[in-house]
Amino acid sequence: MELSSRVTKLLNIKYPIIQAGMAGSTTPELVATVSNSGGLGTIGAGYFSAERLEKEITYVQQLTDLPYSVNLFVPSDKLFIPEKVEHMNAWLKPYRRALNIDEPIVNISEKQQFEDTIDMVIEKGVPVVSFTFGIPNQSILTRLKERNIKVIGTATSVEEAIANESAGMDAIIAQGSEAGGHRGAFTETSSNLTPLIGTMSLVPQIVDQVNIPVVAAGGIMDGRGMVASMILGAEGIQMGTAFLTSEESGASQLYKNAIQHSKETDTVVTNVFTGKPARGIDNEFIHKMNEYNEDIPDYPIQNQLTSAIRKEAAREGNAQWTHLWSGQSPRLAQCSSASTLMERLVQQANQLLNQ
Amino acid sequence: MELSSRVTKLLNIKYPIIQAGMAGSTTPELVATVSNSGGLGTIGAGYFSAERLEKEITYVQQLTDLPYSVNLFVPSDKLFIPEKVEHMNAWLKPYRRALNIDEPIVNISEKQQFEDTIDMVIEKGVPVVSFTFGIPNQSILTRLKERNIKVIGTATSVEEAIANESAGMDAIIAQGSEAGGHRGAFTETSSNLTPLIGTMSLVPQIVDQVNIPVVAAGGIMDGRGMVASMILGAEGIQMGTAFLTSEESGASQLYKNAIQHSKETDTVVTNVFTGKPARGIDNEFIHKMNEYNEDIPDYPIQNQLTSAIRKEAAREGNAQWTHLWSGQSPRLAQCSSASTLMERLVQQANQLLNQ
Repeated sequence: MELSSRVTKLLNIKYPIIQAGMAGSTTPELVATVSNSGGLGTIGAGYFSAERLEKEITYVQQLTDLPYSVNLFVPSDKLFIPEKVEHMNAWLKPYRRALNIDEPIVNISEKQQFEDTIDMVIEKGVPVVSFTFGIPNQSILTRLKERNIKVIGTATSVEEAIANESAGMDAIIAQGSEAGGHRGAFTETSSNLTPLIGTMSLVPQIVDQVNIPVVAAGGIMDGRGMVASMILGAEGIQMGTAFLTSEESGASQLYKNAIQHSKETDTVVTNVFTGKPARGIDNEFIHKMNEYNEDIPDYPIQNQLTSAIRKEAAREGNAQWTHLWSGQSPRLAQCSSASTLMERLVQQANQLLNQ
Repeated sequence: MELSSRVTKLLNIKYPIIQAGMAGSTTPELVATVSNSGGLGTIGAGYFSAERLEKEITYVQQLTDLPYSVNLFVPSDKLFIPEKVEHMNAWLKPYRRALNIDEPIVNISEKQQFEDTIDMVIEKGVPVVSFTFGIPNQSILTRLKERNIKVIGTATSVEEAIANESAGMDAIIAQGSEAGGHRGAFTETSSNLTPLIGTMSLVPQIVDQVNIPVVAAGGIMDGRGMVASMILGAEGIQMGTAFLTSEESGASQLYKNAIQHSKETDTVVTNVFTGKPARGIDNEFIHKMNEYNEDIPDYPIQNQLTSAIRKEAAREGNAQWTHLWSGQSPRLAQCSSASTLMERLVQQANQLLNQ
């Protein structure tokens, strides 16, 4: 067994290691460092306007000539329910008052922003685009593929993996339940829950059902997780939390410290921050907001309603009122540079493969 | 890397493969077949009286001269709340009426039964005892160890693993969230939940914190899962669901069929059947009983209250009113004999190790 795979060939990278998008915490420096170290850096453009994305791409292109990717959030068809927004704004009032911030104006033009970022990705000749929260329509995928832009989907279940393959994706990220941040799910289980399948179960069951290469994600922090994933049949890995605490990450010191002082039992999956389920370190905001669970508007509304609260709380050093996305392996988090992390990862993986 | 490890030496077995106890579904034939195939068969004695356990041990000893183990449920200090039992009996009345069964008499002598089974294990010279739901008191562990009986604890978190090591356990089963059946947990997370850490995250974080050998459990069904677990640092694996659908298993055809027709998204963790969280295939009983969640008595009471209902429903072919424990990898379930399963497992593992 070796590290090169269909994933390294497809993406034209040396090692099958993808840095997860991590919208809000990725910097051009992190993206470029990962790519320059032989992996695939990813611009987490989930929340970006086309203008912001253009700036980030330009910056990354100045720092690396190697392949990188852009991760986009696929818009959903959820309805905008004004009453929920009204209720939620009432529940959020004490936080806004304490932090001295105003009620935001809600922007529901998610689809237009997505179309604009697709245009930008094509205009700038981005080599790889990955998608979270679903599969874009066929005309978008065709446009990307015509420009030889590689497309990667996200799946949290076998059903989602098959849907991604059928749509023409070049590869799939199999996101196990251990993963930090947003669940990439776009289907529900028989009990109307978001699928939370452990990486050990998810990867082989997906690999058995699709022909395109699978990239494992969820709980992977070092060479052990990398080689274990490849033994399960994955041809690459994606890591988020491992890169989030790296020097080049844009996460605040508060956020990095929270991960480094957490235990594997400290995270929960919650929709209170953005309206979509995501795994993060449990805190007061989650506990309080869980009481109003029926009033939580869907993504992207709840994200917009809580965004300024979270930013200001983090700025003031209040870890109890901000999101602290983390996977289930925080004890394995390191604080080195991303290049050192990449070097160690490859070295440990090679040792395990050759023992 | 090779299959022999501290676990094979400790347990005096050829391959580091443990068949999980699976109380209620294990047969002496299954236990003996696994042991005769080079693994460690386990008598799932969680619900057994000492008399029943004696019979099972005698039967297993007739079928194999090789090491086997007994799995016991450690009693907890939960209070018996008569009001909850009264309420639950009211909710269960329609099921009992439909199935024509009586209300059971509740037996709260869990501790005496546990002490009696410990005596029996010592009397019969059982080679290995594993524990679920906690750590027995020091005098019990000392008595077992004085007879050179190997003791294995179960951990669903790093904290539980450290507690097991401190208590003097010879090895630990690290039970990932993918695992079917009862969660072995005996602590709660910061949000008062049962720990549900994916195997990919749990194993390396436990391995880094203890010195005794770790056996991985949760989502492992074949050579891929076995070798991946060992790459993560485990020195053995425990499998339940994989053996549950084998020919020698005592699970009903209804139960086996349910697993073989399930998807990875079909299971949930629920306490409605026994009063302790356990992973099984979602069905009507779980949905209905979730409505009365505050009235569910703790284990072992709820187990006793629903036991006859589940047995009779299964006998009548009603999969909606019985427990169908399963891990998150039902798509990988096979229906061969346990010896064929063991052969295939070892062959695939050796192939992966030598590629």
